[in-house]
Amino acid sequence: MILSALLTSVGINVALCFLFFVLYSILRNRPSNAELYAPRLVAEGKFEEEDEFSVGSLLSSVKWVKRAWEPSEDELLSNSGLDAVVFMRIFVFGLRVFRFAGIVGIFILLPFNYMGNQLNIDFTGLPSKSLETFSISNVDDGSNRLWIHFSAVYIFTAVVCYLLYYEYDYISAKRIAYFYSSKPQPNQFTVLVRSIPTTSGTSFSETIESFFSEFYPNTYLSHSVVRRTSKLKGLINEADKVYKRLVHLKSKNNTQQRFKRAGFMGLFGRRVDLLDHYEKKLEDMEGNVRTERSSVAGKEVPAAFVSFKTRFSAAIVSHLQQGIKPTEWLTEQAPDPQDVYWPFFSASFIKRWMCNIVVIFTCFSITVLFLVPVLLVQGLTHLDQLEIWLPFLTGILKLKIVSQVITGYLPSLILEMFLSLVPPVMIVLSSLQGYIALSQIEKSACIKVLWFTIWNFFFANVLSGSALYRVDVLLEPKRLPELLAVAVPGQASFFIAYVVTSGWTKTFSSKLFRLKRFIWSHLKCWKSDEELEVPSNPYHSEIPRIVFFGLLGITYFFLAPLILPFVLIYYCFGYIIYRNQLLNVYAPKFETGGKFWPVVHDATIFSLILMHVIAVGIFGLKKVPLASSLTIPLPILTLIFNSYCQRRFLPSFKGYPAQCLINKDRVDQMDPTISSFYDKLATAYRDPAMKSIRYSEASESSNSPLLRNADNRS
Amino acid sequence: MILSALLTSVGINVALCFLFFVLYSILRNRPSNAELYAPRLVAEGKFEEEDEFSVGSLLSSVKWVKRAWEPSEDELLSNSGLDAVVFMRIFVFGLRVFRFAGIVGIFILLPFNYMGNQLNIDFTGLPSKSLETFSISNVDDGSNRLWIHFSAVYIFTAVVCYLLYYEYDYISAKRIAYFYSSKPQPNQFTVLVRSIPTTSGTSFSETIESFFSEFYPNTYLSHSVVRRTSKLKGLINEADKVYKRLVHLKSKNNTQQRFKRAGFMGLFGRRVDLLDHYEKKLEDMEGNVRTERSSVAGKEVPAAFVSFKTRFSAAIVSHLQQGIKPTEWLTEQAPDPQDVYWPFFSASFIKRWMCNIVVIFTCFSITVLFLVPVLLVQGLTHLDQLEIWLPFLTGILKLKIVSQVITGYLPSLILEMFLSLVPPVMIVLSSLQGYIALSQIEKSACIKVLWFTIWNFFFANVLSGSALYRVDVLLEPKRLPELLAVAVPGQASFFIAYVVTSGWTKTFSSKLFRLKRFIWSHLKCWKSDEELEVPSNPYHSEIPRIVFFGLLGITYFFLAPLILPFVLIYYCFGYIIYRNQLLNVYAPKFETGGKFWPVVHDATIFSLILMHVIAVGIFGLKKVPLASSLTIPLPILTLIFNSYCQRRFLPSFKGYPAQCLINKDRVDQMDPTISSFYDKLATAYRDPAMKSIRYSEASESSNSPLLRNADNRS
Repeated sequence: MILSALLTSVGINVALCFLFFVLYSILRNRPSNAELYAPRLVAEGKFEEEDEFSVGSLLSSVKWVKRAWEPSEDELLSNSGLDAVVFMRIFVFGLRVFRFAGIVGIFILLPFNYMGNQLNIDFTGLPSKSLETFSISNVDDGSNRLWIHFSAVYIFTAVVCYLLYYEYDYISAKRIAYFYSSKPQPNQFTVLVRSIPTTSGTSFSETIESFFSEFYPNTYLSHSVVRRTSKLKGLINEADKVYKRLVHLKSKNNTQQRFKRAGFMGLFGRRVDLLDHYEKKLEDMEGNVRTERSSVAGKEVPAAFVSFKTRFSAAIVSHLQQGIKPTEWLTEQAPDPQDVYWPFFSASFIKRWMCNIVVIFTCFSITVLFLVPVLLVQGLTHLDQLEIWLPFLTGILKLKIVSQVITGYLPSLILEMFLSLVPPVMIVLSSLQGYIALSQIEKSACIKVLWFTIWNFFFANVLSGSALYRVDVLLEPKRLPELLAVAVPGQASFFIAYVVTSGWTKTFSSKLFRLKRFIWSHLKCWKSDEELEVPSNPYHSEIPRIVFFGLLGITYFFLAPLILPFVLIYYCFGYIIYRNQLLNVYAPKFETGGKFWPVVHDATIFSLILMHVIAVGIFGLKKVPLASSLTIPLPILTLIFNSYCQRRFLPSFKGYPAQCLINKDRVDQMDPTISSFYDKLATAYRDPAMKSIRYSEASESSNSPLLRNADNRS
Repeated sequence: MILSALLTSVGINVALCFLFFVLYSILRNRPSNAELYAPRLVAEGKFEEEDEFSVGSLLSSVKWVKRAWEPSEDELLSNSGLDAVVFMRIFVFGLRVFRFAGIVGIFILLPFNYMGNQLNIDFTGLPSKSLETFSISNVDDGSNRLWIHFSAVYIFTAVVCYLLYYEYDYISAKRIAYFYSSKPQPNQFTVLVRSIPTTSGTSFSETIESFFSEFYPNTYLSHSVVRRTSKLKGLINEADKVYKRLVHLKSKNNTQQRFKRAGFMGLFGRRVDLLDHYEKKLEDMEGNVRTERSSVAGKEVPAAFVSFKTRFSAAIVSHLQQGIKPTEWLTEQAPDPQDVYWPFFSASFIKRWMCNIVVIFTCFSITVLFLVPVLLVQGLTHLDQLEIWLPFLTGILKLKIVSQVITGYLPSLILEMFLSLVPPVMIVLSSLQGYIALSQIEKSACIKVLWFTIWNFFFANVLSGSALYRVDVLLEPKRLPELLAVAVPGQASFFIAYVVTSGWTKTFSSKLFRLKRFIWSHLKCWKSDEELEVPSNPYHSEIPRIVFFGLLGITYFFLAPLILPFVLIYYCFGYIIYRNQLLNVYAPKFETGGKFWPVVHDATIFSLILMHVIAVGIFGLKKVPLASSLTIPLPILTLIFNSYCQRRFLPSFKGYPAQCLINKDRVDQMDPTISSFYDKLATAYRDPAMKSIRYSEASESSNSPLLRNADNRS
């Protein structure tokens, strides 16, 4: 790629970004778009309409940038929880890293690269210079200038490690502070107990009651056994649908629509009053639900939520092995009641363990096998080969427009389609692993998507550029640095373009403007029927994307510093846009207390080590073997730093220290409201499907919040 | 090696074993050897002398075999503790594995190997047949008979895994039972706290007191801060030496020896009464010790033993993170008071962490670098090369006796010398890692010695047979099975000889007969001076040896089944001899509650996987690619089995479940002696050097047990 081509691409994307920015600024305050651009504010009743369209209001509507910028971190914390703060810290961290990297890369490394003569490109004008001129490939072999790159790698690693340490420290302090400032929450007092042993003659409920009142007589409060409710949930869902249709019909008051023929396709048979029909149906269903609910009471699963009077005793029970057999009485801290993921609850220890192994294998194979579509798609760009294999296509392929569509548009479309499947698939896989909380599922999926992205975007792109058979080189670790050093710099221009299109434009179009939803909401006509759905931030698909741009920036820092400004600008855009979305669009669905940060930390450490491995290879190729050998301690030092960080900070992310728990408990004991909290606690973990709701009563409020609660996740 | 050579070697070693057996049987009951062959019985006052030497008594003295065989496991448990029982379970496990392997190997695999024609050895008599005739190398390439080997590998793996599971289950049940039957022990009620944060103005002792009485007011009992006592210990050791000399002089009552000239070499100057001289010296030293002891009181180290009223609260404190900073208030279950290793106590978290990393690197480099002496020594067997390098030696080397000594005896002598250094070196390395108990140090050293043995005995022998440069093949995992398949079968005869000489004869000579100590005790004349020292079983050097023979048996199971009877006989001998030693010679120094078993389990799993890797290679080489591919799932299944075992059993070896702890606590609360136990507990963890002892008082008992207590480890 030459410089002018890059500039053209940047220009087009900047124009697109600007277009989406203007469109968003204009449209965001229209009442018709309120549910699209500020569903959270609407749901909370805070949305402020603007009156009329004018140039003045257009200018003033750009104020959303200021409004997104202004709130302090504490305001964001109280508004969207600690997870949102930690999410924004990724951008703060990225900005800090790439501010430093950008200055070093553009003002020190880039000029030295440009002054090299290795590529022997004749001095034509700057615009037609290949981008390779600005990369390390242009530095002469064996040149002493490479020692500047060498020092840059060392200094950059030190700076990133310092920032990582600072950030980990900051977030773990935030986490403790957040815990101290939190109100009593059911999950803090509750432990999930699984694999309860079966005792003949007694129910699980009795076994639990006798176990915990024997061993924790002073602090044991209550328990609720989990029951097999999938059938009941199905019935409730059906009833819910009918109920909605009924409400809809009632609101219409249109006799035309009320009557329908009972026969084939509503054309024959006697006319039926639909209102009556649905009411009768609903009554039947309510009866079914009630019967099923009473029968479910006996379908106990060997798992229960056990609540205690203090946080400390809940922590004790969750940390210590309870039963003599380590596979029985498995305990863990319970998630928030609304964070519980009910469907896969019943799995026993051995079943979950097997599922785990199967999922790990599946995930591994998906990640590796995804190479196949990637390579097939890349095959589409080589039309000549396609013509050889499928000769009858020659005629069609000769048409310029067809070949342009096939080579230019189709590959990325197919790839995007495949890629959009990945996060949902990973969510399904994670949920099969037997996690009991949505937050755990999302965190696990986040890690899976992250490695998938790194493997299929970075390695597949880099290695497939050369040849498929090279993939098996990963089995010969000795040759890896050399291979990466050959392949990685060649893909620099591709990744710069990727940052600009997928990073900039996609963030503007799909995150800020919510293009797909915008089109969708303007196409459909039954819009008013649907309830307002406030989305939550999909951490499992967002964090891997953001971290991946960081990986690109870090890996290409000394190879092709030209990428750095683009990454830096991505992080600037992202900072404003995601802040705006967190404040206006996304409502927090759960609160992990910042447990996503260790994922980001590990990925950054991986990026650094990848950079070091490539540096070892590059310095070898560039005939400065001493620099190559001297780089080898760097990944080892980084790993040692990482192991220190894990010891120093990771325990804070797994649980809370005894000191905090006891202090917090003492404060609560003083509080007079604690007894009413205990009462609530006793029923907090009842399966939502088991909570009784009568449609006749609910009709009054024209909405069934309790029922929706049951499946607000699906 | 041919069959007759093997038989000769076996014959010689059987004769040697018999010789040592007879010698031991005769000598063990002589009073003069009592301290050598039954130090434990002597120390416990249970030694029974036999009167006179006669043929009848010779025959009856063989009864020791019966006496070693007879005691049940429960008797061994009450006599020598759970560690000894677990140690003997290694032999029981080995006997079970190789009983099965031996039957399959000798009666099924061996005949098929022998019937093969691959090696084309002409049919001379059986005695001059090469041992290779009995190995898998003799099976024809591509022969269907290899499927028998294939099935044998699968069945054998299944049997070993079943036995491993059974054994793990058995030992973890034993562990819980042992805990239930144990008396209250200080270590169960005590937690070691390290990295206590410094608070200005208060001593560590005050910080601990306020922390634990604030957060555990109901169960906190007492604490004792660790102090820097290395100087004090030095002084006490010196005083101890002088005191011993004094006691010796007094016991002689010989005026000749009492007086000595004060001048040069005792030849000139005035005559001094040594008794007076020493007494004065001792008094001075006592003064020094007292001064140092009072000054030591201020030299606090940020570590303390904190005792609680119940086992359960000690477990809570040791399992939960206490302080907000995960690197402060580090807690772990305390070891037995006499198991504490005082010297390296003061290390802070960061210091210990760094030491850990340094030790891991050192250990790794020692293990790898040990290849150098191994290869140099093997070079000695090629004298011709030595003549080329050092031509002036030619004359000497021509002498037959010299060349025989150099090629035959010197290499193994040098190697043995180097090897005997390994366990002590590993102990030193482990103690630098900051473990606070001798048992932890010994367990860690055990693991280090084990991997060292496997690497330097198995891999070095196998790979150096081919060439040094092949070592770097370990970096290309893909070629590993093929390489091992080529190299491993060739070393079968070497390892058979190794089992016979190092396994059989060495166990008889050095373990049973204690040859070195026997010679030593008969050479020295100042014998009576030394106190009777009861040795403890050196787990860190014994377990790796025993497990290594198991590894050889498992790896060669389908390659060269001829090794199996020899390994089986080794385990038979070992079972009797070690039982005898545990009952008569070794006194338990500490009690880990069977924590050595997971090491044995892991090593066995490693042996299985090594066998599978070799099988993959062998079936590939033998041109049965289908069998080769079908073997690949086997190591994966084995690893899955191992991961299940780790989840199922390992937690039981890390701590005791809440259920046991609470039950045991309740039983104790009923016991009226518990308050006197609490009193003892408060002083149990005082540094032995801090315990006051006056030599003048100790003189009466002519022995200083308390002082010896201070350094009974060194």
